[in-house]
Amino acid sequence: MRLIESLWREVRDLTLGNTSSVHRLDSPPAPLEFLRDFVSLNKPCLISKAATAHWPATALWRDRAYLTRALSSSSVTVHLTPNGRADSLAPIDCSASSPPPPPLCFASAHAQRVPFAEALEMISRSSRESNFVAYAQQQNDCFRSEYGPLARDCDEHVPWASEALGSLPEAVNLWIGNHFSETSFHKDHYENLYAVVTGEKHFLLLPPTDVHRMYIKAYPAAQYSYIKETGEFKLEVEEPIKYVPWCSVNPYPLPENLESETANFPLYFSGPKPFECTVKAGEILYLPSMWFHHVRQIPDDTGLTIAVNYWYDMQFDMKYAYFNFLQSIVYQPIHEHTGTEGEAEDLQPACCCKSGSQ
Amino acid sequence: MRLIESLWREVRDLTLGNTSSVHRLDSPPAPLEFLRDFVSLNKPCLISKAATAHWPATALWRDRAYLTRALSSSSVTVHLTPNGRADSLAPIDCSASSPPPPPLCFASAHAQRVPFAEALEMISRSSRESNFVAYAQQQNDCFRSEYGPLARDCDEHVPWASEALGSLPEAVNLWIGNHFSETSFHKDHYENLYAVVTGEKHFLLLPPTDVHRMYIKAYPAAQYSYIKETGEFKLEVEEPIKYVPWCSVNPYPLPENLESETANFPLYFSGPKPFECTVKAGEILYLPSMWFHHVRQIPDDTGLTIAVNYWYDMQFDMKYAYFNFLQSIVYQPIHEHTGTEGEAEDLQPACCCKSGSQ
Repeated sequence: MRLIESLWREVRDLTLGNTSSVHRLDSPPAPLEFLRDFVSLNKPCLISKAATAHWPATALWRDRAYLTRALSSSSVTVHLTPNGRADSLAPIDCSASSPPPPPLCFASAHAQRVPFAEALEMISRSSRESNFVAYAQQQNDCFRSEYGPLARDCDEHVPWASEALGSLPEAVNLWIGNHFSETSFHKDHYENLYAVVTGEKHFLLLPPTDVHRMYIKAYPAAQYSYIKETGEFKLEVEEPIKYVPWCSVNPYPLPENLESETANFPLYFSGPKPFECTVKAGEILYLPSMWFHHVRQIPDDTGLTIAVNYWYDMQFDMKYAYFNFLQSIVYQPIHEHTGTEGEAEDLQPACCCKSGSQ
Repeated sequence: MRLIESLWREVRDLTLGNTSSVHRLDSPPAPLEFLRDFVSLNKPCLISKAATAHWPATALWRDRAYLTRALSSSSVTVHLTPNGRADSLAPIDCSASSPPPPPLCFASAHAQRVPFAEALEMISRSSRESNFVAYAQQQNDCFRSEYGPLARDCDEHVPWASEALGSLPEAVNLWIGNHFSETSFHKDHYENLYAVVTGEKHFLLLPPTDVHRMYIKAYPAAQYSYIKETGEFKLEVEEPIKYVPWCSVNPYPLPENLESETANFPLYFSGPKPFECTVKAGEILYLPSMWFHHVRQIPDDTGLTIAVNYWYDMQFDMKYAYFNFLQSIVYQPIHEHTGTEGEAEDLQPACCCKSGSQ
């Protein structure tokens, strides 16, 4: 009997639903309703375009000339990677070719502060053909620091969320990317109100109760450096070595890796489908604290996806304590390809997941 | 390493506090505050006399003549037991004297519907010397059915709780007892607003995360019958036999049983102290859903403790799913008196706890 799998199912039966769709609201909820029906239940919801219809950003940010003018004297941080995957797993030694596969590390992007116009140009130029992918994903409250001149184009906070949660946002972040930027599965210790302004964002979501399906493991931290002269990246493991717990699952493996990925991460690939949702320009996703999420994006006709997200402090409450307890249980069915049927399920401590991004 | 014991501690460190005292509010909370700071956290609170200061009941119900007059044409249900312990564990065969101790059953009181004046007289007469203890503890929404004429003496619901929870109470119950009535540890699947009108109630409280400390086991259901003519009780196991999962711990063992009880239930007696609170006339206790509670009472100078409680539907949410998962883990350190050190801690399914009373 697989008690942990029963938990995955029960949470869906009780509150989340058994389809992969996210609850939709036609208009912003009242604070009490938002708190009772979503935050307290740790249940995501998608609020329709009515959520940000009054933001000047909705119209203004589709105009690059406006953005460049507004930020003409601003410099902003862009993150460069060879493939659009910052804060993601990567082979330590890319030159290795034949099996066994090279060990993986947790690779952070090359961060660079440049004038906004240059940043925008780098992001726009990012493609399968370019030798880098640039993504403005600085986080750390960057909307209120680096992008100050745009402040009046959006609400300073999400009023119904602030009232429900009893606080103002701890951080407000701006994200500018295109089709090639992707964020790997991770979770944040924040209540997240994620507003898409231009383009679309596509989220895969798993509740915290599904933690074992993410195969969180400790990977050595590594850092990309971009050498402008050669247009090449160097990926080096940090010294002294430190380990970052990170989700091992790539939900979109290449066709040639599908079989091995499915065999390596059976709890993810054979368990309940993740919740899935596309957040369109003007919509807000409530992404509850501790939910695992993977994010891709589709730009609009101007070639960009721009989003603003509000991070509110979460309550470290009984659910959080239950999560830590659950995560500390080692649960990993023995892979079929070992030839052994059955599962190892015991109460050994496991590593915990670091707060990530988006 | 005892993961489950870490969970007990973490819930206290994060939200409940590490003393045995219950959070106190000087005035009724705003609905949003109540929802965010207590219901969502599954955290009890005690609201001062301001909570029911406007109830006519506060003054009127101290007057027996008033009660008897108001309910002169009402009949109400009283529950009779030999010792004040209804819905509690009792030895199946009381006549057995020497070890081994007789097996225990789950004993329900003898329920009897009598004119209110008679019920009041029976409750008042209950003492260590009388051959029975009577307790009006019918539940089942009895305040709105059996005690209809008293309805206007209290609020129909708790306005700030109804607004927070988004519903009216599912049941409103009246409780009339004296010093000799006691309610054994159990939990309810309701959010409970418990208002004491006369006298005092003393609660011991344990959060749902402490479920293993309650040693819930399945006991055969049994029924007391009171034979008026002889003034004696008969306790018979129901046929066909059915099992009721119930908490095994008596928090106040007789001095002669203290050693054996402590040895039998070490997780209760050596773990963190239960939360403890005395609810005085005029105060309301918010007793969160799924919390284990044990209740004793102290009458006022009229000899009675009278209380009204409001049961609101709970949310069967992620916390509930986590609770079921936790409860399904068998965790019972091997008793010291077996001579074996260590603990049995594995993932076997265990029985679940039935919703109880108070």
